[in-house]
Amino acid sequence: METVDIPLCLDSANPEALEAALKVYKGKPLINSVTGQEHSLADILPLVKKYGAAVIGLVQDDEGIPQNSERRVAIAHKIVERAAALGVPGENIIIDCLALTVAADATAGWVALETIRKVKSELGVNMTLGASNISFGLPDRHVVSNAFLTMAIVAGVTCPIVDVAKARPAVLAADLILDRDEYARRYTGAYRQSQRLQKADE
Amino acid sequence: METVDIPLCLDSANPEALEAALKVYKGKPLINSVTGQEHSLADILPLVKKYGAAVIGLVQDDEGIPQNSERRVAIAHKIVERAAALGVPGENIIIDCLALTVAADATAGWVALETIRKVKSELGVNMTLGASNISFGLPDRHVVSNAFLTMAIVAGVTCPIVDVAKARPAVLAADLILDRDEYARRYTGAYRQSQRLQKADE
Repeated sequence: METVDIPLCLDSANPEALEAALKVYKGKPLINSVTGQEHSLADILPLVKKYGAAVIGLVQDDEGIPQNSERRVAIAHKIVERAAALGVPGENIIIDCLALTVAADATAGWVALETIRKVKSELGVNMTLGASNISFGLPDRHVVSNAFLTMAIVAGVTCPIVDVAKARPAVLAADLILDRDEYARRYTGAYRQSQRLQKADE
Repeated sequence: METVDIPLCLDSANPEALEAALKVYKGKPLINSVTGQEHSLADILPLVKKYGAAVIGLVQDDEGIPQNSERRVAIAHKIVERAAALGVPGENIIIDCLALTVAADATAGWVALETIRKVKSELGVNMTLGASNISFGLPDRHVVSNAFLTMAIVAGVTCPIVDVAKARPAVLAADLILDRDEYARRYTGAYRQSQRLQKADE
């Protein structure tokens, strides 16, 4: 809180540790994470409500991470509904549709993208994604990760988890193509900045 | 025909020039192009039928290139229907949904992607795209072009027009993510090939 100006993400599966942090946190934190598991819903959502936090909802439950989009979407619905029942609005839920490794499961990309599209159209909540999981074990990982990130943004991901240094050009290009960057100001500004940094290095 | 093993694309708006080439061509050529303009449909489609060619259909008509996807899709329908009336099957039509320049028209990316999605679901034909038009006038063009190409492939483009040297990694990554590259053979094969070429250069 003293080091950076941006909101923090509190990352723990331990409700007591989370509450200790929430008690001293100033502003609106993001909790990572709640899942569709009963104990997680029961432990985490009351804290989200009590402290006015936002929370990342992972589409997994007691049976693990579903291999098809239908069951993942059903878990997203469950998390949003259980939160709403406690008075937590959808704007405080950020669903993570979970990118697995395409080298281990060839359907990992499609399943994640289908889940993202359905969550966008059925729930309309914000979505995060650890996009680079997709390329684990492959050469030139950033090529696959950036292509997948681009697809995920079109499908509906709004706040991906990325290595900014590697993903920034792809994210800015996606925003530009999707008419989210008026007069290409952010894209061209980032380009000029990178040129200045290159010259300063020389 | 004597120089390369792959089918040729005959590129002319002049029906007499096209027919002169079609008469001597061996195999199945691709004609570039027919539009939704009446004179183009009347001049080009009979040649497509007579010589068993495939043809690129551009979604523009006497009023130019529509700025919305509805009218572009309507032109795609018109081209496919007029071809079918002459006995030209859909498999011989390759629709180009037309990528314009996002720096000149901020909606150019969205309109093209929406058109591609609708043509895929309504007509199911193959689609081409000159994806790099999108980035004209921008710095680091390949970043924007490759991001747009990735989006276009997800949306339904099957045979984009690309600079292979620049677009190959993005296309192979898209195919891998979309489960079109069993055991990642093409992606990893291309990586190994590029490593060998780099070593040979050193």
